[in-house]
Amino acid sequence: FVAGRYLGEIRDGWDIRGNANGGYLIAIAARAMAAASGRANPVTITAHYLAPGRPGPVTIDTEIVKSGKSFVTVTGSMRSNDKPMLQLLGSFTDIKPAGDVLLANGAPPDLPPVEECIGHAHRAETDWPPAFHGRVDLRLHPDDTAMEPEGPRSGKALVRGWFRLHDGERLDAIALLQASDAFPPTIFNANLPVAWVPTLELTVQVRSDPAPGWLRCVFTTRFVTDGLLEEDAELWDSTGRLVALSRQLALIPRVDS
Amino acid sequence: FVAGRYLGEIRDGWDIRGNANGGYLIAIAARAMAAASGRANPVTITAHYLAPGRPGPVTIDTEIVKSGKSFVTVTGSMRSNDKPMLQLLGSFTDIKPAGDVLLANGAPPDLPPVEECIGHAHRAETDWPPAFHGRVDLRLHPDDTAMEPEGPRSGKALVRGWFRLHDGERLDAIALLQASDAFPPTIFNANLPVAWVPTLELTVQVRSDPAPGWLRCVFTTRFVTDGLLEEDAELWDSTGRLVALSRQLALIPRVDS
Repeated sequence: FVAGRYLGEIRDGWDIRGNANGGYLIAIAARAMAAASGRANPVTITAHYLAPGRPGPVTIDTEIVKSGKSFVTVTGSMRSNDKPMLQLLGSFTDIKPAGDVLLANGAPPDLPPVEECIGHAHRAETDWPPAFHGRVDLRLHPDDTAMEPEGPRSGKALVRGWFRLHDGERLDAIALLQASDAFPPTIFNANLPVAWVPTLELTVQVRSDPAPGWLRCVFTTRFVTDGLLEEDAELWDSTGRLVALSRQLALIPRVDS
Repeated sequence: FVAGRYLGEIRDGWDIRGNANGGYLIAIAARAMAAASGRANPVTITAHYLAPGRPGPVTIDTEIVKSGKSFVTVTGSMRSNDKPMLQLLGSFTDIKPAGDVLLANGAPPDLPPVEECIGHAHRAETDWPPAFHGRVDLRLHPDDTAMEPEGPRSGKALVRGWFRLHDGERLDAIALLQASDAFPPTIFNANLPVAWVPTLELTVQVRSDPAPGWLRCVFTTRFVTDGLLEEDAELWDSTGRLVALSRQLALIPRVDS
């Protein structure tokens, strides 16, 4: 094991009702892990979410598990005031993706143009959208917009939309981690009595860093059973290339708890 | 961190051409992690595969990251002769699944009866099936049987079948980890020039321990791009309950390497 400690900071404005967005947190930790590995791009990274993130300094302790020719495997432990917040495991690489497509049973989601999709960042005077939407630029498919607590529901556990950073900053492979948890929960579009769905675990598999421009994203949930749900995402770049698949496991808080 | 070391053993007969099956390895490590956590059932567990497993003793070093009311999060490090083989991260629980189904957009795979599906364990006099098939009892859908190197191909990256342990041993939640990597690669059914697909990472999300009897399993791959593929599985128990979802990331070895 080679160990290293990195210092980070959860900044103001990345929260949803006070708690920092989970995609923002995994991206902070992944940057430390990438630095420790000496490789720029996550190939697959998993985070377990242990406590909510609040603005302020964090530490990320990293350990190199194996440094191979193609991949470097690293653990990460993000803490705030010595309290565990995220525990991570990831493999990183510098291999340049070749762009080969041997099988593609799927395509980018069919979205109306960006300007016909629904943004929320302009409504900062109200509680909705959350502060987080001042940082990321989401444009939701007009059929999938039920992110407001009292908004209409499509009835389908499906969310499609465009993603970029609000300042137009170029996305790299680690920014894909952020995108994979940036959208409103799929479940908010289904007619279920669920007000919040804390993430237990998020795994993102990165195929390639994205080309410049907007990402097209689709999130689906098929099974809400035994108090748990999965949320699967596909992220596609502006050239129509699949750049990441992600899956998270979230908890349905019990009504009696 | 509370740390503990467990001793295990990779037994003979769990291999595929000399390398122990990845589901067998994750199950060994998960039993150590469950013991360390004091909770019986994984909720979600991720393994990164670092080196092939050969018969012989292994150590599993565990560390408790967080011991919460509902979940205990544990890291695991499986080594053979001090060489890292698997690195793991998992959360475990003793919460009894309530059996609630709020959403199910899917159903168990439609399989012919067990006796009409194709088993391979009876052909031990040849190289095929691998030794591993003497331990697990797989019965493949007659349309998805292309596991032999020279066998016919369905053309679809799909494998469906029944699973149980060969001695009929009762399956618990950890045995689901084993089932999630027990079937021939989906990609062997597609018409692709791929002879082997080493697993980089496997994540299994467990919804419930299974009822006694056969599991019904379905494995699919949608995207083989940039030298990588995902393999998604659904595991259903004999009562028709979804008991686990899994996803692995596997490598397409480059033809020139």
